[in-house]
Parts: sequence; C-alpha cells; structure tokens
Amino acid sequence: MTTVPRYLTGKKEEIKEFLDKFDVFLFDCDGVLWSGDHLFPGTVETLEMLRSNGMLAPAGEKVRARDSYQLGKQVVFVTNNSTKSRADYKKKLEKLGIPSTTEEIFSSSYSASIYISRILKLPENKRKVFVIGETGIEQELQTENVPFIGGTDPAYRREVRPDDYKLIAAGDPSLLDPEVGVVLVGLDFHLNYLKLALAYHYIKRGAVFLATNIDSTLPNSGALFPGAGSMSAPLIMMLGEEPVSLGKPNQAMMDAIEGKFKFDRSRTCMVGDRANTDIRFGLEGKLGGTLGVLTGVSSKDDFLTGPIRPSVYLDKLSDLLEAK
Amino acid sequence: MTTVPRYLTGKKEEIKEFLDKFDVFLFDCDGVLWSGDHLFPGTVETLEMLRSNGMLAPAGEKVRARDSYQLGKQVVFVTNNSTKSRADYKKKLEKLGIPSTTEEIFSSSYSASIYISRILKLPENKRKVFVIGETGIEQELQTENVPFIGGTDPAYRREVRPDDYKLIAAGDPSLLDPEVGVVLVGLDFHLNYLKLALAYHYIKRGAVFLATNIDSTLPNSGALFPGAGSMSAPLIMMLGEEPVSLGKPNQAMMDAIEGKFKFDRSRTCMVGDRANTDIRFGLEGKLGGTLGVLTGVSSKDDFLTGPIRPSVYLDKLSDLLEAK
Repeated sequence: MTTVPRYLTGKKEEIKEFLDKFDVFLFDCDGVLWSGDHLFPGTVETLEMLRSNGMLAPAGEKVRARDSYQLGKQVVFVTNNSTKSRADYKKKLEKLGIPSTTEEIFSSSYSASIYISRILKLPENKRKVFVIGETGIEQELQTENVPFIGGTDPAYRREVRPDDYKLIAAGDPSLLDPEVGVVLVGLDFHLNYLKLALAYHYIKRGAVFLATNIDSTLPNSGALFPGAGSMSAPLIMMLGEEPVSLGKPNQAMMDAIEGKFKFDRSRTCMVGDRANTDIRFGLEGKLGGTLGVLTGVSSKDDFLTGPIRPSVYLDKLSDLLEAK
Repeated sequence: MTTVPRYLTGKKEEIKEFLDKFDVFLFDCDGVLWSGDHLFPGTVETLEMLRSNGMLAPAGEKVRARDSYQLGKQVVFVTNNSTKSRADYKKKLEKLGIPSTTEEIFSSSYSASIYISRILKLPENKRKVFVIGETGIEQELQTENVPFIGGTDPAYRREVRPDDYKLIAAGDPSLLDPEVGVVLVGLDFHLNYLKLALAYHYIKRGAVFLATNIDSTLPNSGALFPGAGSMSAPLIMMLGEEPVSLGKPNQAMMDAIEGKFKFDRSRTCMVGDRANTDIRFGLEGKLGGTLGVLTGVSSKDDFLTGPIRPSVYLDKLSDLLEAK
C-alpha cells in the first residue's frame, strides 16, 4: 500500500461517509478499546453508536438509556489472547464496562479449535490434540468436541526424569499418545522441558504443528513478557519449521471469522493499533477498509510512511462519535 | 573449502605423515570417541598412542601396561555440554573407560566463565550473572570467582504470580537484582516462564546476552531433545537479538582454548563428526588441519561434497592406529 491514509479526526462528514461503507467492524481490543486495565473514554459510547441494537448492561446493573443514533453494524472483538475462552473474555470486557455477547468475541483459541474441528481432515485415530497452553484453549476445544491432552493437566507439570528419554525415544504410549495428530501451542505460563520434548516428538512423528498466535511478547503492567510465539520458538528452532498460526495476522483466522459471520469482505472494516498485525490482517484479508488508531503501538509515522498502512486513521477510536 | 578431503583409512604412511603435522588434537567427543553410552572400540588405544605420556587409569584400577608407540601430542576434549562441569565431565570420561585429566577438558560452561571473568569488562556494580542452566555452569562460574544468581536456585523454580508482572515492570530489586550485568543461557531442564521473563528484562535493562552454546537439540537415547539453543530461542524471538555463543563453532571458544593452552594453530588439528560445527570450528579457527570421522552425524557425502569439508577423513577414529 503506497497510498497515504486519510486522517479523519475532526472531519464529521468524512467519518459518516466512511462508516456508511461498512456493515461489519472487526476490533482489535488492547490499544484500541483499552490499554491494560484502563478503558479509554468514549469506548462504550462508540460501540453503542455502531451496533445494531442496544446491548444489555452487565448483570445487576441497570440497562442504560439508549442513544437514538445507532448505525446497525455488526461488531466483532478479535483477540489473539489464547489463555482465555470467549466466556472468560466476555467477563473481562464486562469488568472493563463494555457490554458484549460471547457471539461477538473471536479469540485465537476459538479460531484454532474451529480450524482443527472443521478444516483439518484428521484420520479417525489421530484426532487428539497435545496442548501447550492454558484453560482458554481447553475450553474452546471442548466447545468443538475436540479431544485433547496436556494443557493444564498437572501430570505434565513435572521435571523430566532419566527414564523419560528412553521412553520418548521409543515412542512409548505411556508418554506419547498414539492418537495425537495435532500439537497446538499457545501461551503457557507452565511451559517446561517435558512439554517441549513431547511436542517435538509428536511433530516429528507426524502431528500437525499449530500455534494459536505468534506474538513474541505479551504486554502487562506497561512492560513486555513472553508471549505465545515465544512458546513456539524452541520448537521452531529444533524442527526448522514454522507452525500454522491461527491468530492475527494469519488469514486462517479471517477465514474462520468469515465462516462464522458470513460477512461481505468488501463491507467489512478492521480496526486496530498495530500496522504489522491488525492492519496487515485486514489488508491481506482484502477487507473493504482498515482503520488505524493512535492509542496503541503504531505511531502516526508508522501509519503514514510505513510499509503497511491503513486506509484511514484517527487519534482515538472515540473520534468516530463526531459522526453523531 | 572446495578441495576434496583425502580418505586416510588403510593408508599407513599417509596417516603417519598427517599426524606428524600436529602437536595438538582437539576432540569433539560424542560421535567421535563414543556414541551415547557406547565407547567405540580402539578409542582408548588411539588416545594413548597420541598422548605425550601414559595417563593414569581411573582410581582403584591398575595402571595398564603402556604401549611403546607414543607420539607426544597434547589432547583436548572440547564439548558444548554445559550441564556438566569439567570435573563432572572427567567422571563421565572415566565411566566410559577413558582416562583423562580435568585440564584436558574444555566445556562451553568453562569457556563462558573465562569469557565473563577475563574478556568482558564489566563495571564493578554489574558483575553478577543471571544463569539459565544447570550446575555445570554454576561450578565453572565459581571456579572463576564470578558471582551469579538463578541457575539451580529453587527460588526460581516456581510459577509466575500476578504480582510479579508489576514488580518486574517496575524493576523492583526483589525480583531484578541491579548488579546483574550478564544473562548466561545454557541447557536448563527447569526452564520456566519466570526465568524467561527475568532474563528478558535483564537484557532489556542492559545485561549482555550470552549462551554457552546454540545447539538446538540434545541427543539422548538415539533421539533428539531440546538443546541449549532452544532455551535461548524465546529470548532471541522476543529481543530480535542473537546471544554471543561461547560454544563450538563460535570462535570465542577457540580463543579461550588458545588462551589456556597457548598452542600454535598451524600445528593443531580439530577432530569431529559434524561438518557444520566441529569442522567449521577448526576451519574458521584457521587450524592446521581438520579430521572428520564417519561415526557420528555427518556422512561421507557431507564431507566430500558439502559446503564445509575437513582436510582428511576416516571411517572411524581408531583407524589412526594403523600408524603403529
């Protein structure tokens, strides 16, 4: 993309015209709707303006008075966070004050589960998934009736023992389940040597190598920590092979979103703060538009002169409220 | 190297002529002297023939009768194994039936310790090393009087806790020791999320990023398991930066060996089974010769037509005994 993105902040008519082009808005969350635990002012109002109908407020709170200006858009929250299930993520949104439904949430663990259950054609005796990751992945696999081992099972949270080497080398079923046909790697706060060794041997024996996402870092408390991509890194180095990633910017995730929402890509807009993941995700997905915001990772300079540029950008998401 | 290596097996005079060119032989071990727990026949006799004087047999055993044909060479065992100290490695050699002295052993953990203590010029208040690794590294750091934290300390073998993120982000000294100036990563069977997070933050705050070695895999029981390089992989991905590696084929290790043995490189020969590590190590170190053996990883075809070729090769190390 060598065109220069248009800057829409303060331009009411241009904003209205831009919004009119789309029926669906895909939202990256952290850096767009909030940062860490801080909800950006105007986020709830902006989502409310865009949505098709008034959302219910979190349980126990009064339903707020609805604004009359509602544009009837489908809103989808697209997150690479694999540690939470969609149900958990909905709770997170509610805690931050954003009403939502589970159906509006699309996470990389859900994307991976759909990919495994509906797209991968696994033989009947190779349908189990060996999981490196937390409960969010497990819950979404369960939702799709995909059998799995590993994950949060305490049996895998142990040291490697001298006997393990010989048993693993021999493919002993006490350690290597012969029904495993997929290794799915997400963020795992309990990553250890044993899990890495088992994942490596499953893949060497023919299992498909998948990752929920390949973000190398995870933001927390204003700093960076090891992300899901860092869990795959040892395996990538050992195998000389990259996993298929089911998170942004990989198009397997876009296909999964499309499979669920049946949207018209030309009338869909991706909203995000990161050029190299969010905006790239929208561009490679051939969506009708991409909207960058300056409340997260990418700078104005990134959007204006970088290799990956949104079609339009705003100082902040709530600048869309100027359309009212 | 585009010359074709000479094949010396069965050629007594050529072997004698080749041996005459060198005073020092650097030996890779696994795949050359033994494989796994299996000592190759003739290994002990070959080393005895090369050596300058009769080595003592392991404690409790009788000193064997010495062979009269002794060539007076210096022998050095060069290993990337960082989990064992030189003293431990000597025990391993003895268990396999190979007499040796600690002084003949050069490991990547020893190489790293020398590099930190004698080559890195660390400020007085930044002399501590944060270790990802096992006891071999700790013992060698102690030998060189280098202060360290991490390693096998059970305090680091725990889950990451919610509070850790804020403390690490803030650089709290309860988690991030302000005196750490080096992160040294070796093979760690107890790698975990906390250690990776701490290592990342130390390096982001200015610590030097070192690795004992970057072998992605570790052979055991005829199969491969995660190696020291796989411990660095998440950090490399997060930082976008490679560590300085102190193991083969990195020349920092050759410099350290030279520093200790004061050898004449033109009269030194590297012996190994892997073209891309052992032979490369000798070639890039501008040694007088390199000797490949076919009892390990590289094949005859690798040696004859690959990009990295030894000056001579043998079916097996003990073919040198034909010189007698």
